[in-house]
Amino acid sequence: MATVSENDLLTQLRWRYATKEFDPSATIPADTWDTIEQSLVLTPSSFGLQPWKFLVLTNPGKKSELLEHSWNQRQVVDCSHFVVIAAPTKVGDQEIQSWIDCIATTRNVSPESLAGYQQIMEGFLGNLDDAARLAWAHRQIYIALGQLMTTAALLGVDACPMEGFAPPEYDRLLQLSERNLTASVACALGYRSSDDKYASVPKARFERQAVIEHLP
Amino acid sequence: MATVSENDLLTQLRWRYATKEFDPSATIPADTWDTIEQSLVLTPSSFGLQPWKFLVLTNPGKKSELLEHSWNQRQVVDCSHFVVIAAPTKVGDQEIQSWIDCIATTRNVSPESLAGYQQIMEGFLGNLDDAARLAWAHRQIYIALGQLMTTAALLGVDACPMEGFAPPEYDRLLQLSERNLTASVACALGYRSSDDKYASVPKARFERQAVIEHLP
Repeated sequence: MATVSENDLLTQLRWRYATKEFDPSATIPADTWDTIEQSLVLTPSSFGLQPWKFLVLTNPGKKSELLEHSWNQRQVVDCSHFVVIAAPTKVGDQEIQSWIDCIATTRNVSPESLAGYQQIMEGFLGNLDDAARLAWAHRQIYIALGQLMTTAALLGVDACPMEGFAPPEYDRLLQLSERNLTASVACALGYRSSDDKYASVPKARFERQAVIEHLP
Repeated sequence: MATVSENDLLTQLRWRYATKEFDPSATIPADTWDTIEQSLVLTPSSFGLQPWKFLVLTNPGKKSELLEHSWNQRQVVDCSHFVVIAAPTKVGDQEIQSWIDCIATTRNVSPESLAGYQQIMEGFLGNLDDAARLAWAHRQIYIALGQLMTTAALLGVDACPMEGFAPPEYDRLLQLSERNLTASVACALGYRSSDDKYASVPKARFERQAVIEHLP
Protein backbone atom coordinates (compact mmCIF):
# COMPACT_ATOMS: atom_id res chain seq x y z
CA MET A 1 0.00 0.00 0.00
CA ALA A 2 1.18 3.46 -0.94
CA THR A 3 -1.82 5.41 0.21
CA VAL A 4 -1.88 9.16 0.15
CA SER A 5 -2.50 11.28 3.22
CA GLU A 6 -5.94 12.82 3.57
CA ASN A 7 -4.31 16.19 3.95
CA ASP A 8 -2.22 15.94 0.78
CA LEU A 9 -5.20 14.74 -1.20
CA LEU A 10 -7.45 17.60 -0.11
CA THR A 11 -4.68 20.16 -0.50
CA GLN A 12 -4.25 19.18 -4.14
CA LEU A 13 -7.97 19.03 -4.85
CA ARG A 14 -8.30 22.54 -3.43
CA TRP A 15 -5.28 23.66 -5.45
CA ARG A 16 -6.85 22.65 -8.73
CA TYR A 17 -9.18 24.95 -10.65
CA ALA A 18 -10.31 25.23 -14.24
CA THR A 19 -7.24 26.99 -15.56
CA LYS A 20 -8.08 29.99 -17.70
CA GLU A 21 -4.55 31.02 -18.68
CA PHE A 22 -1.77 28.56 -19.24
CA ASP A 23 1.89 29.48 -19.38
CA PRO A 24 2.59 28.71 -23.05
CA SER A 25 6.28 28.16 -22.33
CA ALA A 26 5.71 25.46 -19.68
CA THR A 27 5.80 21.87 -20.87
CA ILE A 28 4.77 18.83 -18.86
CA PRO A 29 7.90 16.68 -18.33
CA ALA A 30 7.96 13.36 -20.16
CA ASP A 31 7.89 11.21 -17.02
CA THR A 32 4.93 13.11 -15.58
CA TRP A 33 3.06 12.81 -18.86
CA ASP A 34 3.83 9.11 -18.93
CA THR A 35 2.21 8.77 -15.51
CA ILE A 36 -0.87 10.63 -16.71
CA GLU A 37 -1.15 8.29 -19.68
CA GLN A 38 -0.83 5.26 -17.44
CA SER A 39 -3.58 6.69 -15.26
CA LEU A 40 -5.79 7.15 -18.33
CA VAL A 41 -5.25 3.52 -19.30
CA LEU A 42 -6.22 2.44 -15.78
CA THR A 43 -9.52 4.35 -15.78
CA PRO A 44 -12.46 2.15 -14.73
CA SER A 45 -15.45 1.77 -17.04
CA SER A 46 -18.72 -0.09 -17.25
CA PHE A 47 -17.96 -3.79 -17.84
CA GLY A 48 -14.36 -2.65 -18.34
CA LEU A 49 -15.21 -1.91 -21.98
CA GLN A 50 -13.15 1.30 -22.17
CA PRO A 51 -15.25 2.95 -24.89
CA TRP A 52 -12.78 5.72 -25.65
CA LYS A 53 -9.79 7.00 -27.56
CA PHE A 54 -7.53 9.64 -26.07
CA LEU A 55 -6.07 11.89 -28.74
CA VAL A 56 -3.07 13.86 -27.53
CA LEU A 57 -2.15 17.08 -29.32
CA THR A 58 1.09 18.91 -28.66
CA ASN A 59 1.80 20.26 -32.15
CA PRO A 60 1.16 24.05 -32.12
CA GLY A 61 -0.13 24.03 -35.69
CA LYS A 62 -2.60 21.26 -35.03
CA LYS A 63 -3.82 22.90 -31.82
CA SER A 64 -4.25 26.20 -33.68
CA GLU A 65 -6.58 24.55 -36.17
CA LEU A 66 -8.93 23.71 -33.31
CA LEU A 67 -8.92 27.16 -31.74
CA GLU A 68 -11.68 28.76 -33.78
CA HIS A 69 -13.88 25.72 -33.19
CA SER A 70 -13.32 25.99 -29.44
CA TRP A 71 -15.00 29.31 -28.79
CA ASN A 72 -11.47 30.77 -29.22
CA GLN A 73 -10.51 29.60 -25.78
CA ARG A 74 -6.76 30.16 -25.59
CA GLN A 75 -6.24 27.12 -23.38
CA VAL A 76 -6.31 24.98 -26.51
CA VAL A 77 -3.13 26.51 -27.85
CA ASP A 78 -1.41 27.70 -24.66
CA CYS A 79 -1.55 24.40 -22.81
CA SER A 80 1.23 21.85 -22.96
CA HIS A 81 -0.89 18.81 -23.88
CA PHE A 82 -4.41 19.01 -25.29
CA VAL A 83 -6.41 15.81 -24.94
CA VAL A 84 -9.53 15.16 -26.97
CA ILE A 85 -11.50 12.16 -25.75
CA ALA A 86 -13.45 10.50 -28.53
CA ALA A 87 -16.36 8.12 -28.18
CA PRO A 88 -17.10 5.25 -30.56
CA THR A 89 -20.37 5.97 -32.36
CA LYS A 90 -21.10 2.26 -32.65
CA VAL A 91 -20.01 0.07 -29.76
CA GLY A 92 -21.00 -3.49 -30.50
CA ASP A 93 -20.07 -7.13 -30.75
CA GLN A 94 -16.65 -6.40 -32.22
CA GLU A 95 -15.58 -4.22 -29.27
CA ILE A 96 -16.96 -6.79 -26.85
CA GLN A 97 -14.96 -9.53 -28.59
CA SER A 98 -11.78 -7.45 -28.40
CA TRP A 99 -12.36 -6.94 -24.71
CA ILE A 100 -13.01 -10.64 -24.09
CA ASP A 101 -9.80 -11.47 -25.97
CA CYS A 102 -7.90 -8.92 -23.89
CA ILE A 103 -9.17 -10.40 -20.62
CA ALA A 104 -8.43 -13.93 -21.80
CA THR A 105 -4.86 -13.05 -22.75
CA THR A 106 -4.22 -11.09 -19.55
CA ARG A 107 -5.57 -13.79 -17.28
CA ASN A 108 -4.38 -16.72 -19.34
CA VAL A 109 -7.81 -18.27 -19.73
CA SER A 110 -9.75 -19.26 -22.83
CA PRO A 111 -12.18 -16.78 -24.38
CA GLU A 112 -14.78 -19.53 -24.17
CA SER A 113 -14.54 -19.53 -20.39
CA LEU A 114 -15.76 -15.92 -20.50
CA ALA A 115 -18.82 -16.69 -22.64
CA GLY A 116 -21.23 -15.87 -19.81
CA TYR A 117 -19.69 -12.45 -19.29
CA GLN A 118 -19.68 -11.86 -23.02
CA GLN A 119 -23.39 -12.65 -23.21
CA ILE A 120 -24.17 -10.21 -20.39
CA MET A 121 -22.38 -7.42 -22.24
CA GLU A 122 -24.01 -8.31 -25.56
CA GLY A 123 -27.39 -8.35 -23.86
CA PHE A 124 -26.79 -4.98 -22.22
CA LEU A 125 -25.62 -3.19 -25.34
CA GLY A 126 -28.09 -5.08 -27.52
CA ASN A 127 -30.91 -3.49 -25.56
CA LEU A 128 -29.68 0.02 -26.37
CA ASP A 129 -30.23 1.86 -29.63
CA ASP A 130 -27.37 3.77 -31.25
CA ALA A 131 -28.14 7.02 -29.40
CA ALA A 132 -28.31 5.27 -26.03
CA ARG A 133 -25.03 3.45 -26.68
CA LEU A 134 -23.33 6.71 -27.50
CA ALA A 135 -24.80 8.35 -24.37
CA TRP A 136 -23.47 5.41 -22.36
CA ALA A 137 -20.02 5.85 -23.92
CA HIS A 138 -20.07 9.59 -23.19
CA ARG A 139 -20.78 8.87 -19.52
CA GLN A 140 -17.87 6.43 -19.30
CA ILE A 141 -15.65 9.06 -20.86
CA TYR A 142 -16.58 11.47 -18.09
CA ILE A 143 -15.25 8.95 -15.58
CA ALA A 144 -11.96 9.19 -17.48
CA LEU A 145 -12.22 12.97 -17.44
CA GLY A 146 -12.76 12.89 -13.68
CA GLN A 147 -9.81 10.60 -13.09
CA LEU A 148 -7.68 12.69 -15.46
CA MET A 149 -8.39 15.94 -13.62
CA THR A 150 -7.82 14.32 -10.22
CA THR A 151 -4.60 12.65 -11.36
CA ALA A 152 -3.29 15.89 -12.83
CA ALA A 153 -4.06 17.82 -9.64
CA LEU A 154 -2.28 15.24 -7.51
CA LEU A 155 0.81 15.53 -9.70
CA GLY A 156 0.70 19.33 -9.60
CA VAL A 157 -0.36 19.66 -13.23
CA ASP A 158 -3.02 22.19 -14.14
CA ALA A 159 -6.03 21.30 -16.24
CA CYS A 160 -9.03 22.84 -17.87
CA PRO A 161 -11.89 20.56 -18.93
CA MET A 162 -13.59 21.77 -22.08
CA GLU A 163 -17.07 21.03 -23.35
CA GLY A 164 -17.17 24.26 -25.31
CA PHE A 165 -16.18 23.21 -28.80
CA ALA A 166 -17.88 22.17 -32.03
CA PRO A 167 -17.77 18.35 -32.19
CA PRO A 168 -18.51 18.22 -35.95
CA GLU A 169 -15.49 20.42 -36.65
CA TYR A 170 -13.27 18.42 -34.30
CA ASP A 171 -14.51 15.22 -35.94
CA ARG A 172 -13.59 16.60 -39.35
CA LEU A 173 -10.19 18.06 -38.44
CA LEU A 174 -9.12 15.03 -36.45
CA GLN A 175 -10.53 12.60 -39.01
CA LEU A 176 -12.73 10.95 -36.43
CA SER A 177 -15.92 10.48 -38.43
CA GLU A 178 -14.43 8.00 -40.87
CA ARG A 179 -13.26 5.93 -37.92
CA ASN A 180 -16.74 5.88 -36.33
CA LEU A 181 -15.55 8.15 -33.54
CA THR A 182 -16.86 11.48 -32.31
CA ALA A 183 -15.28 14.05 -30.01
CA SER A 184 -16.91 13.84 -26.58
CA VAL A 185 -15.01 16.21 -24.32
CA ALA A 186 -11.53 17.70 -24.13
CA CYS A 187 -9.04 18.66 -21.47
CA ALA A 188 -6.16 21.09 -21.68
CA LEU A 189 -3.21 20.27 -19.43
CA GLY A 190 -0.11 22.23 -18.52
CA TYR A 191 0.83 24.90 -16.02
CA ARG A 192 -1.07 27.99 -14.96
CA SER A 193 0.21 31.41 -15.97
CA SER A 194 1.19 33.69 -13.13
CA ASP A 195 -1.21 36.19 -14.75
CA ASP A 196 -4.27 33.97 -14.28
CA LYS A 197 -6.35 35.83 -11.73
CA TYR A 198 -8.69 32.87 -11.42
CA ALA A 199 -5.93 30.92 -9.72
CA SER A 200 -6.33 32.95 -6.56
CA VAL A 201 -10.06 33.57 -6.28
CA PRO A 202 -11.72 31.58 -3.47
CA LYS A 203 -13.07 28.25 -4.67
CA ALA A 204 -16.87 28.33 -4.74
CA ARG A 205 -18.92 25.23 -3.98
CA PHE A 206 -22.36 24.60 -2.57
CA GLU A 207 -22.31 23.82 1.14
CA ARG A 208 -21.66 20.18 1.92
CA GLN A 209 -25.13 19.72 3.46
CA ALA A 210 -26.71 21.03 0.26
CA VAL A 211 -25.24 18.24 -1.88
CA ILE A 212 -24.64 15.34 0.54
CA GLU A 213 -27.48 13.75 2.45
CA HIS A 214 -27.18 10.97 4.99
CA LEU A 215 -30.26 8.80 4.81
CA PRO A 216 -31.56 7.49 8.14
CA MET B 1 2.11 22.11 -2.86
CA ALA B 2 1.56 18.67 -1.45
CA THR B 3 1.86 16.69 -4.61
CA VAL B 4 1.79 12.94 -4.65
CA SER B 5 4.58 10.83 -6.09
CA GLU B 6 3.98 9.28 -9.50
CA ASN B 7 4.78 5.90 -8.02
CA ASP B 8 2.30 6.16 -5.15
CA LEU B 9 -0.42 7.34 -7.49
CA LEU B 10 0.03 4.49 -9.95
CA THR B 11 0.40 1.94 -7.18
CA GLN B 12 -2.98 2.91 -5.78
CA LEU B 13 -4.67 3.06 -9.19
CA ARG B 14 -3.39 -0.45 -9.87
CA TRP B 15 -4.52 -1.57 -6.41
CA ARG B 16 -8.11 -0.57 -7.05
CA TYR B 17 -10.57 -2.87 -8.77
CA ALA B 18 -14.34 -3.16 -8.91
CA THR B 19 -14.78 -4.91 -5.60
CA LYS B 20 -17.06 -7.93 -5.83
CA GLU B 21 -17.07 -8.95 -2.17
CA PHE B 22 -16.85 -6.48 0.66
CA ASP B 23 -16.00 -7.41 4.23
CA PRO B 24 -19.36 -6.63 5.89
CA SER B 25 -17.66 -6.08 9.26
CA ALA B 26 -15.27 -3.38 8.01
CA THR B 27 -16.40 0.22 8.40
CA ILE B 28 -14.74 3.26 6.85
CA PRO B 29 -13.39 5.41 9.73
CA ALA B 30 -15.14 8.73 10.27
CA ASP B 31 -12.15 10.89 9.37
CA THR B 32 -11.54 8.98 6.14
CA TRP B 33 -15.20 9.27 5.22
CA ASP B 34 -15.07 12.97 5.97
CA THR B 35 -12.20 13.32 3.49
CA ILE B 36 -14.18 11.45 0.85
CA GLU B 37 -17.13 13.78 1.36
CA GLN B 38 -14.89 16.82 1.07
CA SER B 39 -13.53 15.39 -2.16
CA LEU B 40 -17.07 14.93 -3.46
CA VAL B 41 -17.87 18.55 -2.68
CA LEU B 42 -14.74 19.64 -4.56
CA THR B 43 -15.63 17.72 -7.74
CA PRO B 44 -15.41 19.91 -10.86
CA SER B 45 -18.44 20.28 -13.12
CA SER B 46 -19.52 22.13 -16.22
CA PHE B 47 -19.89 25.85 -15.34
CA GLY B 48 -19.41 24.70 -11.72
CA LEU B 49 -23.13 23.97 -11.57
CA GLN B 50 -22.77 20.76 -9.52
CA PRO B 51 -25.95 19.10 -10.82
CA TRP B 52 -26.02 16.33 -8.24
CA LYS B 53 -27.05 15.05 -4.85
CA PHE B 54 -25.00 12.43 -3.06
CA LEU B 55 -27.19 10.17 -0.93
CA VAL B 56 -25.20 8.20 1.64
CA LEU B 57 -26.67 4.99 3.01
CA THR B 58 -25.16 3.15 5.95
CA ASN B 59 -28.33 1.81 7.57
CA PRO B 60 -28.47 -1.98 6.96
CA GLY B 61 -32.25 -1.96 6.68
CA LYS B 62 -32.29 0.79 4.11
CA LYS B 63 -29.53 -0.84 2.08
CA SER B 64 -31.43 -4.14 2.17
CA GLU B 65 -34.45 -2.49 0.59
CA LEU B 66 -32.32 -1.66 -2.44
CA LEU B 67 -30.81 -5.12 -2.85
CA GLU B 68 -33.53 -6.72 -4.95
CA HIS B 69 -33.55 -3.69 -7.23
CA SER B 70 -29.78 -3.95 -7.70
CA TRP B 71 -29.60 -7.28 -9.50
CA ASN B 72 -29.07 -8.71 -5.99
CA GLN B 73 -25.49 -7.55 -6.00
CA ARG B 74 -24.30 -8.10 -2.43
CA GLN B 75 -22.03 -5.06 -2.53
CA VAL B 76 -25.07 -2.92 -1.75
CA VAL B 77 -25.52 -4.45 1.68
CA ASP B 78 -21.97 -5.63 2.48
CA CYS B 79 -20.24 -2.33 1.85
CA SER B 80 -19.63 0.25 4.55
CA HIS B 81 -21.10 3.27 2.75
CA PHE B 82 -23.40 3.06 -0.25
CA VAL B 83 -23.60 6.26 -2.27
CA VAL B 84 -26.40 6.89 -4.74
CA ILE B 85 -25.76 9.89 -6.97
CA ALA B 86 -28.96 11.54 -8.10
CA ALA B 87 -29.41 13.92 -10.99
CA PRO B 88 -31.90 16.79 -11.09
CA THR B 89 -34.54 16.07 -13.73
CA LYS B 90 -34.99 19.78 -14.37
CA VAL B 91 -31.92 21.98 -14.10
CA GLY B 92 -32.91 25.52 -14.83
CA ASP B 93 -32.89 29.15 -13.89
CA GLN B 94 -33.39 28.43 -10.19
CA GLU B 95 -30.27 26.27 -9.98
CA ILE B 96 -28.30 28.83 -11.94
CA GLN B 97 -29.44 31.57 -9.56
CA SER B 98 -28.40 29.50 -6.54
CA TRP B 99 -25.00 29.00 -8.08
CA ILE B 100 -24.59 32.69 -8.89
CA ASP B 101 -25.53 33.53 -5.29
CA CYS B 102 -23.02 30.98 -4.02
CA ILE B 103 -20.20 32.46 -6.11
CA ALA B 104 -21.16 36.00 -5.09
CA THR B 105 -21.11 35.11 -1.39
CA THR B 106 -17.86 33.15 -1.63
CA ARG B 107 -16.02 35.86 -3.56
CA ASN B 108 -17.70 38.78 -1.84
CA VAL B 109 -18.98 40.33 -5.04
CA SER B 110 -22.49 41.32 -6.09
CA PRO B 111 -24.64 38.82 -8.01
CA GLU B 112 -25.15 41.59 -10.57
CA SER B 113 -21.43 41.58 -11.36
CA LEU B 114 -21.88 37.97 -12.50
CA ALA B 115 -24.74 38.72 -14.89
CA GLY B 116 -22.67 37.91 -17.96
CA TYR B 117 -21.76 34.50 -16.62
CA GLN B 118 -25.36 33.91 -15.60
CA GLN B 119 -26.54 34.67 -19.14
CA ILE B 120 -24.03 32.24 -20.64
CA MET B 121 -25.32 29.46 -18.41
CA GLU B 122 -28.95 30.34 -19.09
CA GLY B 123 -28.22 30.37 -22.81
CA PHE B 124 -26.48 27.02 -22.68
CA LEU B 125 -29.18 25.23 -20.69
CA GLY B 126 -31.93 27.10 -22.49
CA ASN B 127 -30.81 25.51 -25.74
CA LEU B 128 -31.26 22.01 -24.32
CA ASP B 129 -34.55 20.16 -23.97
CA ASP B 130 -35.33 18.25 -20.77
CA ALA B 131 -33.76 15.01 -22.01
CA ALA B 132 -30.56 16.76 -23.09
CA ARG B 133 -30.30 18.59 -19.76
CA LEU B 134 -30.64 15.32 -17.90
CA ALA B 135 -28.02 13.70 -20.15
CA TRP B 136 -25.71 16.64 -19.41
CA ALA B 137 -26.30 16.19 -15.67
CA HIS B 138 -25.60 12.45 -15.91
CA ARG B 139 -22.26 13.17 -17.58
CA GLN B 140 -21.26 15.61 -14.84
CA ILE B 141 -22.18 12.98 -12.29
CA TYR B 142 -19.74 10.59 -13.93
CA ILE B 143 -16.97 13.11 -13.31
CA ALA B 144 -17.92 12.87 -9.64
CA LEU B 145 -17.95 9.09 -9.89
CA GLY B 146 -14.46 9.18 -11.41
CA GLN B 147 -13.11 11.48 -8.74
CA LEU B 148 -14.83 9.38 -6.04
CA MET B 149 -13.23 6.14 -7.21
CA THR B 150 -9.81 7.76 -7.58
CA THR B 151 -10.04 9.42 -4.18
CA ALA B 152 -11.10 6.19 -2.52
CA ALA B 153 -8.24 4.27 -4.12
CA LEU B 154 -5.71 6.85 -2.99
CA LEU B 155 -6.99 6.55 0.58
CA GLY B 156 -6.92 2.75 0.47
CA VAL B 157 -10.71 2.44 0.40
CA ASP B 158 -12.29 -0.10 -1.91
CA ALA B 159 -15.11 0.77 -4.24
CA CYS B 160 -17.49 -0.77 -6.72
CA PRO B 161 -19.29 1.50 -9.18
CA MET B 162 -22.79 0.29 -9.96
CA GLU B 163 -24.94 1.02 -12.98
CA GLY B 164 -26.86 -2.21 -12.54
CA PHE B 165 -29.96 -1.17 -10.66
CA ALA B 166 -33.52 -0.13 -11.41
CA PRO B 167 -33.64 3.68 -11.28
CA PRO B 168 -37.46 3.82 -10.97
CA GLU B 169 -37.33 1.62 -7.87
CA TYR B 170 -34.47 3.61 -6.36
CA ASP B 171 -36.37 6.82 -7.11
CA ARG B 172 -39.41 5.43 -5.31
CA LEU B 173 -37.63 3.97 -2.27
CA LEU B 174 -35.42 7.01 -1.79
CA GLN B 175 -38.28 9.44 -2.46
CA LEU B 176 -36.38 11.07 -5.28
CA SER B 177 -39.16 11.54 -7.82
CA GLU B 178 -41.12 14.03 -5.72
CA ARG B 179 -37.95 16.10 -5.40
CA ASN B 180 -37.36 16.15 -9.18
CA LEU B 181 -34.36 13.88 -8.78
CA THR B 182 -33.51 10.55 -10.36
CA ALA B 183 -30.87 7.98 -9.45
CA SER B 184 -28.02 8.21 -11.95
CA VAL B 185 -25.32 5.84 -10.72
CA ALA B 186 -24.20 4.35 -7.42
CA CYS B 187 -20.96 3.41 -5.75
CA ALA B 188 -20.39 0.98 -2.91
CA LEU B 189 -17.43 1.81 -0.67
CA GLY B 190 -15.73 -0.14 2.07
CA TYR B 191 -13.07 -2.82 2.30
CA ARG B 192 -12.55 -5.92 0.18
CA SER B 193 -13.19 -9.32 1.69
CA SER B 194 -10.17 -11.61 1.88
CA ASP B 195 -12.37 -14.10 0.02
CA ASP B 196 -12.74 -11.89 -3.06
CA LYS B 197 -10.85 -13.75 -5.74
CA TYR B 198 -11.19 -10.79 -8.09
CA ALA B 199 -8.80 -8.84 -5.88
CA SER B 200 -5.86 -10.86 -7.13
CA VAL B 201 -6.59 -11.49 -10.79
CA PRO B 202 -4.35 -9.50 -13.14
CA LYS B 203 -5.87 -6.18 -14.14
CA ALA B 204 -6.96 -6.26 -17.77
CA ARG B 205 -6.78 -3.17 -19.96
CA PHE B 206 -6.34 -2.54 -23.65
CA GLU B 207 -2.75 -1.75 -24.60
CA ARG B 208 -1.81 1.88 -24.20
CA GLN B 209 -1.27 2.35 -27.94
CA ALA B 210 -4.79 1.04 -28.60
CA VAL B 211 -6.45 3.82 -26.61
CA ILE B 212 -3.97 6.71 -26.69
CA GLU B 213 -2.88 8.31 -29.95
CA HIS B 214 -0.36 11.09 -30.34
CA LEU B 215 -1.37 13.27 -33.24
CA PRO B 216 1.48 14.59 -35.39
